[in-house]
Formats: sequence, C-alpha cells, structure tokens
Amino acid sequence: MPPKAVVLFSGGLDSSTVLAIALSEGFEVYALSFDYGQRHKIELELARQSASALGAKQHKVVCADLRQFGGSALTDSIDVPKGREEKEMSSNIPITYVPARNTIFLSFALAYAEVLSANDIFVGVNAVDYSGYPDCRPEFISAFENLANLATKAGVSGNERVRIHAPLIHWSKSQIIKKGIELGVDYKMTHSCYAPTSTGLACGLCDSCSLRLKGFKDAGLEDPADYVHK
Amino acid sequence: MPPKAVVLFSGGLDSSTVLAIALSEGFEVYALSFDYGQRHKIELELARQSASALGAKQHKVVCADLRQFGGSALTDSIDVPKGREEKEMSSNIPITYVPARNTIFLSFALAYAEVLSANDIFVGVNAVDYSGYPDCRPEFISAFENLANLATKAGVSGNERVRIHAPLIHWSKSQIIKKGIELGVDYKMTHSCYAPTSTGLACGLCDSCSLRLKGFKDAGLEDPADYVHK
Repeated sequence: MPPKAVVLFSGGLDSSTVLAIALSEGFEVYALSFDYGQRHKIELELARQSASALGAKQHKVVCADLRQFGGSALTDSIDVPKGREEKEMSSNIPITYVPARNTIFLSFALAYAEVLSANDIFVGVNAVDYSGYPDCRPEFISAFENLANLATKAGVSGNERVRIHAPLIHWSKSQIIKKGIELGVDYKMTHSCYAPTSTGLACGLCDSCSLRLKGFKDAGLEDPADYVHK
Repeated sequence: MPPKAVVLFSGGLDSSTVLAIALSEGFEVYALSFDYGQRHKIELELARQSASALGAKQHKVVCADLRQFGGSALTDSIDVPKGREEKEMSSNIPITYVPARNTIFLSFALAYAEVLSANDIFVGVNAVDYSGYPDCRPEFISAFENLANLATKAGVSGNERVRIHAPLIHWSKSQIIKKGIELGVDYKMTHSCYAPTSTGLACGLCDSCSLRLKGFKDAGLEDPADYVHK
C-alpha cells in the first residue's frame, strides 16, 4: 500500500504543483481545502474539480471561519491592492496577509493526518515570491514540524515522525511552473487570483496574478488561464 | 490601558479558572470558544453566559468543524467511557482525545491575538489530570510559543514576543479549584461533562466528571454543580 499524505490544496498554481509532486513521490494524496470566508470563493469550486482531475484519492473542504477576527483584505471588505510593482509587494507584510492562516491550515492538516495515520503533510509555501508573509518562511515550517511531533499520538509513542514537506519553498515561480508542466499539471484549471470576477475570471492585476504572469513569462511560456487584463 | 489577552475558554472548570487568573493579573480578557461539532453543545450556551459573568471584555465562538475528520468519542457517535478508575484513564491516550485539537485552538487564538495586537494567550491545559492527551504537555506549549513567534507579524519585526500562559499545567484539580474559589469563580456555572443530558446536567461518570468530583473531594469542598450521578 502506498503511504498516505495530506496536501494543503487551494486549487491554485502552487498547491496544484505540490499535489502533483506528492503523487510523483508515490504518495496516496488526501487534499484539504478551507472555506475561511475568502472573498474569492470560486477557488473552492475549482479546487473540487481539479483535486480529482489531478489524482487525489480524497478531497475535504473544512469550514474554518477567519472572518470572525478580520484584519485582512482577503476576508474583509478592504480593497485588494492592484497593479503594484514587485518591489512594493516585498517591502512590507501586505494587507492580503490573513493572520495565522498557515498555522491554522497546518493544524487542520495535522488532525486529518492523525486520523488517516499519515505521517506526511505537503504545503505549497514559498519564501521567494511570498509577498512578505511571515508564515511562509523555512523557519516557520521547521517550527511547525517540531510542534507536530509533540502534539500527536505518534509524537508521544516516538515510533513515527510527522514530516512537513514544503518542496517549493526555495523555488522561483518559473521553476514551479516548469516542474508542474513536467509532471503534467494543466494550469488552465488552476486559479490564483485574489479578486476574481463572479464567474471566476482572474483580474490579472493583483499581487497573485502579477507574480503568476511574471512566472510564466520568465519560464518562456504562455499562461493558459483566462484573464480580464493580461 | 490594560494589556489584552486571549483566553481559550470552554466554560469548563479549568478554563473558567484561567479566565479569572488572567483578569487577576491585570489583563483585559478576550475569550474564545469553538463550535467544533462537539456532542456536548450545551457547553457553548453556558460559555456564552459565563464569559460575561466572569468579566470578559469580548467572547467569540468560532466554527472549526473537527467532525469532518472523525477519530474521537467527543465528536463521533462512539460511546464516551464511564465509570473508569483513575489508573485506567491515565494509562493510554483515550478515545475522547480529539486529534490536534489544542494545536488548532491555539492557532485560532494566535489569529485573534494578532488582530487585537495582543501578545498574551492563556490556555487551561493540565499535565497532571490530563488523561493522557499529548497536546497538554509542557513541551507542547513551549513548541507552540516558539512557533507563534515565527508565525506572526510581531515575530517578524522582533519587537514583541507572544507568550503562551498555561498557569494550571502543573496543578492538581484540587489546587485549581482552591485558586478559583479564592478568585471568586462560581463553579456552579462551569460545565465539564463529556456526555451531559440534553438539558445540560452532568453525568457524573465520565472521565471529566470523575476528575472534577475527585478534585472537589480532595479540596475538602462540595461541588456546587448538579449531576445525574454524584
């Protein structure tokens, strides 16, 4: 039987690539998405479709309502910044940062992994194009792995170790895209926009769209997704 | 202005005492409870009432549905064990363990704290009467504090430190009760049972009731709460 892995999966470019990487390493994939009150809810619909298309064994969508706390343009009625230069994006922690989001998402992944008796969790965080999010740094991932091994039954018995895989952490967007294409990911099905139209069309101007479009350009490839502005 | 603290608050004996301790240390208290699909939902109603009675400034109930994953008698239709001896309770990780629950709860507390600009989080975990839960141990709390300081804006700027307070961690149940009474906690309003009746009456037989009743007995006090069996 193949080993099981939980993959944090938004249906975006990064996590779709991570899902393909986990499969290529021989894992049976259990994808996990969140309904966290995000304004771009269309991503959950697209995630449902693409998880099975990519080859996940199971896909769960968990309600974890972060709107209760506020504090981010991704969940509140704050405007998502558009048309920023790369330098602007990386200089500060942006308004699209959702407080403690990756900590919360990894905690749920840990619960799912424990119930499945899986020791492996994959997450698509990236420290290069990470737009200044504190919870996308390698030291954050190490600290979570340390915590995971104290928080669970496996950690108490000492027989197993939980591993947090962040294969994209040091890759540029163009490296991620090249790897995904090598593994057969159909990027037309992946969705990255922070502020899509109601039908799911990407804006082409927010930080996430800008980084994605630049990634394709750097890779010398055409982004197959549709955009309002491209 | 008093410093703000987030208190993880179930409305039970331990977290009610912790809330009183945080207030006694001069914090303005923001209480946080979870609707995690627990079978004993009456605890949320009682928590709403007692958070304000105890003196919390604000109380939030967040939906974090752990039933999706299963794996615990507290969220599934598995029987809650009753009438066990203390030795039985501590020998194994029990079926009432909810995978990664405290990791998830502390992660949400961290999000709430970050939005409030609070640096202090209180949690009522206890390593003495902890029924063998891996995420109630001091090393788990330390690992979470370490993570918290890497996961947040405060951790990145290095100007502030997040502190996880677990004041009950080395106390016996009777010590907790004595401290709470000293601080004026009305334990009639606190609710600890894993398997209450539909009107909220405690069973008196589950691990949680047994430890609570023993705690009052050891403290030489009468438990003011009502029970089916006492």
